[in-house]
Amino acid sequence: MPKAWNLLVSSLLNLPGVGPKMAERMALHLLRHDPDSDDLLQRLEEARRKLRRCSQCGDFVESDAPVPTCPLCRDTDREDSLLCVVEEIGDLQAMERSRAFRGRYHVLGGVLSALDGVGPEELRIHELLQRIRSGKITEVILATNPTAEGETTAAYLADLLKPLGVQTTRLAYGLSSGSAIQYADEFTLARALEGRRPLS
Amino acid sequence: MPKAWNLLVSSLLNLPGVGPKMAERMALHLLRHDPDSDDLLQRLEEARRKLRRCSQCGDFVESDAPVPTCPLCRDTDREDSLLCVVEEIGDLQAMERSRAFRGRYHVLGGVLSALDGVGPEELRIHELLQRIRSGKITEVILATNPTAEGETTAAYLADLLKPLGVQTTRLAYGLSSGSAIQYADEFTLARALEGRRPLS
Repeated sequence: MPKAWNLLVSSLLNLPGVGPKMAERMALHLLRHDPDSDDLLQRLEEARRKLRRCSQCGDFVESDAPVPTCPLCRDTDREDSLLCVVEEIGDLQAMERSRAFRGRYHVLGGVLSALDGVGPEELRIHELLQRIRSGKITEVILATNPTAEGETTAAYLADLLKPLGVQTTRLAYGLSSGSAIQYADEFTLARALEGRRPLS
Repeated sequence: MPKAWNLLVSSLLNLPGVGPKMAERMALHLLRHDPDSDDLLQRLEEARRKLRRCSQCGDFVESDAPVPTCPLCRDTDREDSLLCVVEEIGDLQAMERSRAFRGRYHVLGGVLSALDGVGPEELRIHELLQRIRSGKITEVILATNPTAEGETTAAYLADLLKPLGVQTTRLAYGLSSGSAIQYADEFTLARALEGRRPLS
């Protein structure tokens, strides 16, 4: 195949979750649909130019300020004593969609993973400690994912936060809403039983 | 979320096989890894500028010629009497990797699909008929995929080619190399039985 094709495919292969077949399909699509290519080129360039990380939570924000702060961190109606620590901005978005949380967020930017070479230095842990030390935070919800890495990271952070005198909590485990007990895995069922609550 | 983020995600959503979660993961990756973003921007722009379709087979080719022809179509060592019709350039590449075919190719650019609004006009069928009429082709292998659309397209083409006096053939159906009979679907097994061959 021509070099320009191979280069395009290999650069699509760098994207997460994209395998060789999919990279070829995507390349073909981009070469056959000029408007889609135009959009992608322009919007990627624009997003890279405009988006910065909020100095507080780490979420993306469009701002020219020397120290950018996102609307959520500036919102004076939110609870300052409650901090929710998430892995990625997608988690933050999901929490917001639930409308069940009115505190502040902190995006770690990943999880500890020996396999992927992600240590504490690669995450926004230093910033987290600073926020807790300087602030009004009384409870830190460690809302990392219920995966091996997520658990490890939460345990690591809990240890780190212990001397700071804040309460650390973890989201409840249990059955997903709309799921079937019949198909729940053993681990989820065991946790759901463990966390059972009295009907009032 | 900031507008620039939403626009980037929506333009990644246009890519085939990319859902909302994956588009967000990809956007995040592109914003966090500048070298990968640089590569993608540059290579997509370059591929769009350099790559044209071969006037014969329809494969991509890097060429400034008024009528671009790819190396494979120019190769004088290949059989001119045998034409293999494939859906997409990925199929052509797979055939080449097999090293089992030494004829010429013709890329349709898709399959007939009422659902996706793809009719004969959207495919390179006119060019196919022209090649057959003007040439030395005696056999046309209709190597569309063994899917409903692929079969329909092959049947449609076979009808169309009948008056032109060329032999039309179809790739053999059967068990994949390395697969297990135990897990083969009924249709594949039925076709494998139907096409069974004597041991010499």
